Amino acid sequence: MKKICILGATGSIGRQTLDIVRSNPDSFKVTALAAHRNIGLLAEQIKEFKPSVVVVTDKDCAQDFTQQTDGSVIVLSGIENLVKLVEQDDVDIVVNALVGSVGLKSTLATIRAGKTLALANKESMVVGGELVRKELKKINGSVIPVDSEHSAIFQCLYGENPGDLKKIILTGSGGPFRGRTAGDLRNVTPEEALAHPRWNMGKKISIDSATLMNKGLEVIEAHFLFNLDYDQIDVVIHPQSIVHSMVEFVDGSIKAHLGQTDMKIPIQYALSFPERLGSSIPSVDFVELGSLTFESPDLDNFPCLKYSFEAGRNGKTYPVVLNAANEEVVAAFLFRKIPFTAISEIILTVLDAHDPCEVDNLRVLEESEKWARDKAKGLIENY
Amino acid sequence: MKKICILGATGSIGRQTLDIVRSNPDSFKVTALAAHRNIGLLAEQIKEFKPSVVVVTDKDCAQDFTQQTDGSVIVLSGIENLVKLVEQDDVDIVVNALVGSVGLKSTLATIRAGKTLALANKESMVVGGELVRKELKKINGSVIPVDSEHSAIFQCLYGENPGDLKKIILTGSGGPFRGRTAGDLRNVTPEEALAHPRWNMGKKISIDSATLMNKGLEVIEAHFLFNLDYDQIDVVIHPQSIVHSMVEFVDGSIKAHLGQTDMKIPIQYALSFPERLGSSIPSVDFVELGSLTFESPDLDNFPCLKYSFEAGRNGKTYPVVLNAANEEVVAAFLFRKIPFTAISEIILTVLDAHDPCEVDNLRVLEESEKWARDKAKGLIENY
Repeated sequence: MKKICILGATGSIGRQTLDIVRSNPDSFKVTALAAHRNIGLLAEQIKEFKPSVVVVTDKDCAQDFTQQTDGSVIVLSGIENLVKLVEQDDVDIVVNALVGSVGLKSTLATIRAGKTLALANKESMVVGGELVRKELKKINGSVIPVDSEHSAIFQCLYGENPGDLKKIILTGSGGPFRGRTAGDLRNVTPEEALAHPRWNMGKKISIDSATLMNKGLEVIEAHFLFNLDYDQIDVVIHPQSIVHSMVEFVDGSIKAHLGQTDMKIPIQYALSFPERLGSSIPSVDFVELGSLTFESPDLDNFPCLKYSFEAGRNGKTYPVVLNAANEEVVAAFLFRKIPFTAISEIILTVLDAHDPCEVDNLRVLEESEKWARDKAKGLIENY
Repeated sequence: MKKICILGATGSIGRQTLDIVRSNPDSFKVTALAAHRNIGLLAEQIKEFKPSVVVVTDKDCAQDFTQQTDGSVIVLSGIENLVKLVEQDDVDIVVNALVGSVGLKSTLATIRAGKTLALANKESMVVGGELVRKELKKINGSVIPVDSEHSAIFQCLYGENPGDLKKIILTGSGGPFRGRTAGDLRNVTPEEALAHPRWNMGKKISIDSATLMNKGLEVIEAHFLFNLDYDQIDVVIHPQSIVHSMVEFVDGSIKAHLGQTDMKIPIQYALSFPERLGSSIPSVDFVELGSLTFESPDLDNFPCLKYSFEAGRNGKTYPVVLNAANEEVVAAFLFRKIPFTAISEIILTVLDAHDPCEVDNLRVLEESEKWARDKAKGLIENY
């Protein structure tokens, strides 16, 4: 019986993680949950799964929530308590499904506490990849990715000699605006951008998927997770999203992971690893599918992917700045402050203005983040 | 340095195996070769690779050959000496690339001698699967398949728990006559049947590929190699032959092996296993490919696949009879004695007339084979 802590319990990944626990009561027990503001849903989750401790990161919501609860669960308040949550004795696996670079401290705390980290918070690898690698090295540990692409690569590499890897091929659906030009894209609405053709996901990642920034962040995440040069990472658009990613080995063999576009597959794998558990997800019918198609990403109209490769290659604090600027502009787009095409424009301006330094510690990282957020905010206001 | 014995050295797989040895002189050394009648090519191979012993299975050719050689290599004559060849002390791996059920005795001898078996001779698993499994059980050994489909499955299963396997999906190109109807097929020539659209192979397997019998034999081979029920084996036609086969696990994950249609990939993997060696085979360009397509096999016009599933499910000596009848009719078709469509007709008649028994020993198997060959020959004469 593995004891599970979920950070971001009321979000898309959190809810799907709880679905898996519900379906596998003999394998998993929820012992700790964290949510930001959705205390109504959190209350239901506590009633059903009976964790011993929860954190509500929004302090106002936490106060309201504490007054409602009957005392059967310990309620901690504020983001600083996430570290305490992952350190609980009755936690084996931490599912980090927080959104944004705010997840980094929990990622580091989980590794330091010697818990298994199931990582859905890709931003923590993008901004803190160097720091995460250092912590992993100390304990000879590893991260189990939850992103479908990285889970695919992790599974394709399992049992293989890492030295035999030649390159990876990250696949992406191309998002809801695949095939459109910058002119078409100027006036698209948040609602259109949120309507992803294949995956059912949270808001932030849906917008990132529409700009191809999600694929860009995944490139940087893959660089850190699998110790790859950027030249070893190819991105191919595959609209059906059945091939979740591929690995090519030195002998010309390619292994691919395929499956339904259902996040429960990678989430459950991260929880059950190194075992697999049964699931009721129907088999892929390849004859019914008919064909799987592949095309190049359109870097002219979706330049965020290009900027991500450049930020990754340039290293230092560039990925931090890329991610922080992106978080600001995505929020601004969702609040209708800027048009869709401004997302990439502002990110480029912020990157061009950045004076980079090495990421030696959290302070450097936080300073660069703050600088990038302020810079992006100024550009948003004056757009 | 692994010491390699190649049975069928002058055939397609044998020659490609030698190409791999030539490219990897630090990893492999050829110590033993066997050929049937192509003594001209065998002489060149001896000159280049300097094995210590060779077998020429055709006794007339062996006599001619012995007179030509300078005594630097031991030449043995006749098929009965293949067992002696695989038992040589300076042999680590035996590549069994013989054609037809004649390969079974060498397969069994290789396992008994404790050598690694790289199996390209699928007929030995089809006719002798039960006997091979018994031998493997005694020494807790396994076979490394060379067939691209079975190598794909072997690679996808490597590192996984066998109990997590749900089913396999064997892919096949559909052969040169995909899309044709029985009426169209009546008058096709051996030359047309030999022109395989994707794979460059020997004559027997090319005809088997055109009738889909090759896929049928692979189904039975997979049943024995991977301990699968026939319900766990799906066949899907995939004309591009880039996906070499797939494995579905209980959690809905599917792993596929992909690559160029080059037999050197699975041959080299069988030799280098559990390591991988570099190769100069170019990467697959998925964008250039554009799409990978899948369709159902046409069992009405290519019924050999259906008969194979039935023979496999009925078990006992049915697979032996299926294979023996097929060897006879393929030879008759190549000699223009019967039309293409008679291949499946005669196989069905032989299967229907068969009175099966359990395969306990080689004698039972040889008697069923002889019966099936005689029956098929009679039907061929009177067609």
